[in-house]
Amino acid sequence: MLYDALFHYTSRDVCPMHMPGHKRNTVLLGGRLPYAIDITEISGFDNLYRAQGILRETAQAAAALYGSRQAFLLVNGSTAGILAAVRATVKPGGTLILARNCHKSVYHAAELCGLHTAYLLPETDEEAGIEGSIAPGQVAASLAEHPDAGLVVITSPTYTGVISDISSISAVCHQRGVPLMVDQAHGAHLGFSPAFPGEALKGGADIVVTGLHKTLPALTQCALVHVGGSLIDADAVARELSVFQTSSPSYVLMASIDHCIRLLAERKGDLFRAYEANLASFDLAVRDLKKLRVLCHGSDVLARHRRLFLFDPGKIVILTENTALTGTEFARLLRTRHQIELEMAGTRYAVAMTSICDTAETFARLADALLDVDRRAELVSGGRKPESAFTLPAQRMPICEALRLDGCLLPLAESAGATALEYVWAYPPGVPLIVPGERIDPDFIRYLKYLGDAEIALDSTRGKLPPHIYAKPQQFD
Amino acid sequence: MLYDALFHYTSRDVCPMHMPGHKRNTVLLGGRLPYAIDITEISGFDNLYRAQGILRETAQAAAALYGSRQAFLLVNGSTAGILAAVRATVKPGGTLILARNCHKSVYHAAELCGLHTAYLLPETDEEAGIEGSIAPGQVAASLAEHPDAGLVVITSPTYTGVISDISSISAVCHQRGVPLMVDQAHGAHLGFSPAFPGEALKGGADIVVTGLHKTLPALTQCALVHVGGSLIDADAVARELSVFQTSSPSYVLMASIDHCIRLLAERKGDLFRAYEANLASFDLAVRDLKKLRVLCHGSDVLARHRRLFLFDPGKIVILTENTALTGTEFARLLRTRHQIELEMAGTRYAVAMTSICDTAETFARLADALLDVDRRAELVSGGRKPESAFTLPAQRMPICEALRLDGCLLPLAESAGATALEYVWAYPPGVPLIVPGERIDPDFIRYLKYLGDAEIALDSTRGKLPPHIYAKPQQFD
Repeated sequence: MLYDALFHYTSRDVCPMHMPGHKRNTVLLGGRLPYAIDITEISGFDNLYRAQGILRETAQAAAALYGSRQAFLLVNGSTAGILAAVRATVKPGGTLILARNCHKSVYHAAELCGLHTAYLLPETDEEAGIEGSIAPGQVAASLAEHPDAGLVVITSPTYTGVISDISSISAVCHQRGVPLMVDQAHGAHLGFSPAFPGEALKGGADIVVTGLHKTLPALTQCALVHVGGSLIDADAVARELSVFQTSSPSYVLMASIDHCIRLLAERKGDLFRAYEANLASFDLAVRDLKKLRVLCHGSDVLARHRRLFLFDPGKIVILTENTALTGTEFARLLRTRHQIELEMAGTRYAVAMTSICDTAETFARLADALLDVDRRAELVSGGRKPESAFTLPAQRMPICEALRLDGCLLPLAESAGATALEYVWAYPPGVPLIVPGERIDPDFIRYLKYLGDAEIALDSTRGKLPPHIYAKPQQFD
Repeated sequence: MLYDALFHYTSRDVCPMHMPGHKRNTVLLGGRLPYAIDITEISGFDNLYRAQGILRETAQAAAALYGSRQAFLLVNGSTAGILAAVRATVKPGGTLILARNCHKSVYHAAELCGLHTAYLLPETDEEAGIEGSIAPGQVAASLAEHPDAGLVVITSPTYTGVISDISSISAVCHQRGVPLMVDQAHGAHLGFSPAFPGEALKGGADIVVTGLHKTLPALTQCALVHVGGSLIDADAVARELSVFQTSSPSYVLMASIDHCIRLLAERKGDLFRAYEANLASFDLAVRDLKKLRVLCHGSDVLARHRRLFLFDPGKIVILTENTALTGTEFARLLRTRHQIELEMAGTRYAVAMTSICDTAETFARLADALLDVDRRAELVSGGRKPESAFTLPAQRMPICEALRLDGCLLPLAESAGATALEYVWAYPPGVPLIVPGERIDPDFIRYLKYLGDAEIALDSTRGKLPPHIYAKPQQFD
């Protein structure tokens, strides 16, 4: 076991005449950072990209835990796994079908491999004001329209906990012989208990990127990429990982993966039972909320939502729309008054993330804070309107072609008809509003203004938006 | 300061309802890994890819320390910096001039950007049996031959401590208006004292990747990319870093960068004076070696070597050619008999890495071990012959084109005339012997057999070599 082996090794008096340059010298450096176990590929500690020993054991334990054919350790986050998986699977110039709410790394993979892109737009759940799931029928229609597609990529669960029907989607993909990749960066904790359904490998996904650090106890940057079915060349994935990850991977990060995997292998029953009990107590407590609403928790545990999509109960999405508070103001109250830091806050909601490492006390603290804010908050009847609908802009060229063009920073108000040469993002929810190569329509300009007025944070590749967008002014059609 | 701020923050009783999923729960997880300071982009802790606060301060401190125009923090090793720098600088389809002994990440960058490649072959120093430096004249000749080149990339220092004349090379590049990038992954410690000359930014390089963890006290995966002159678009580098690095960078790694930068800013005078004194004592001690030789140290401190190339005195290259020991056998003796682990070992030499974190005691331990092995070793007159010369294979197509082709695993003996579709590497020294798209010549096959006989480790992209190489059998010319 890597975790134990590292501590055992560095308890011995071996003199390190190798990198890293800190030489485990805690006299000089202090002992607050994990210098003591930060070694390099010395004898007995294997090599991540040609793993045959202790690192292979960790990868095999990870594969066994999730039931995958092969697992690879990631030390550059889910990002590295996504870039590697796409490049290993789709030939240059091929076509990628992806959910529009995919992480930016999927778009970057499309750029790097010169891929054509076709989008699956999740429906917005108007009641909750969050993106819903990807419907199997959408995937079937897109595959029919793009029979040359090399891969379908969707995100499940999303940042706000929405889980798609992976079994049906993978069946649709496999009918066409096209592999399905699931970005499960937010779903490493799924599949260990019936209360947490929707794990993508169990649903038949061919390649799954599982971001350990987000919802399980692993250090930040730690993740796994799993190869499921036979449609994926695992050797090609391994090769591409050595392109997108450092050639000196951190043993501290890998030890943390090992520690996490072993903990779950040995104690997942106990740990998830306790987690479920904590969530159940939280559910009971937040039933008393009068103005705040917690999506799929407390009095919001309605069959309606559960029919629309599966939902990760570990995500606590707090809707503030019936109060005078924005999500951001709500999060600030929790920080200043209750010493609770949330994961994210937007205009109409805020997100708390929970895990098996939360305790009855931390759950109670969150519930108490919600009840306190709820008591003090002003009830606003009707609430704020959800956003007006997002529509997909017309594509004029693949992303990689648009990135080769020179453009200029156009005032947004004068950009209608131009071709965008950069991404524009809105947080939340993180869907790119426009992608390089797409046409800028008057509707897009109005929508951006609407989001700005609603205080939704906008970001663009060049960071000049608003008021400027990098684009090619000539009209092509 | 990030390092202090993290420990201060997590000493407060703030309840983390955000990722990472370990929730700083050291009761469950134990306190051996740095969970306590592993946070995410919460309020007050900035955002690496839009740094405006505490992370910008660290980057500015790094730029000030090295005297660069702008510095960026790397948490995915020098690899991420190299991929980002090349993609930010050379247009797709452009030409890259690179030293053939560049790290594989430079080749990967060429693949990803669809670049044409032209190589600078370092001369082998026959006396030492290691690769020498890149001569300014070579660079001038290559630039004359490839006037469309977008970037020149060289590695300095190399893995074995060889430093090229950056001032002259950058002057040659700038005459043509072409930027120079230096992979300084092994040279983060240069420039802080006259005993460690050759720092690339001071030599006028335009973009420099400085791998903190190798020779300075930072955790593995930590590095910097510096922008020097005005030929590089720093904003473009920043954008590309967000492509090749995780969107959840580790605060543990970034804290380690901060700690390292501050330590040097405050104490570099003291620390390097002590390091020089330790190296001087080591030099004195190893003058008594009779059979082993330490390159540019002890009795080998000859003007001859210093004329051929500058040498990093922190690298201890131990030549075993006058003994019956291979470098590998020598390293094993040091491990088993002296509890010293070296950085690398090959057929004719082994490498020890030292740093400011070594002490008088660790240097003495290394010198004593060398003297002990030297006393016991058998003198072999004449020594083993260095390798026969490596010649550049003919290029039939760019790397990215070759990677699109389907080939098959050919028996090496029958592969003459075929086009290689994979890389073949020899360690040491790590120069690719063939690159995808190059013609397999009978000379190459003989050379590979020679290296195999000399027990030099060979590796290929597919890992089937020997006896097979992945190639396209048809002859193109």
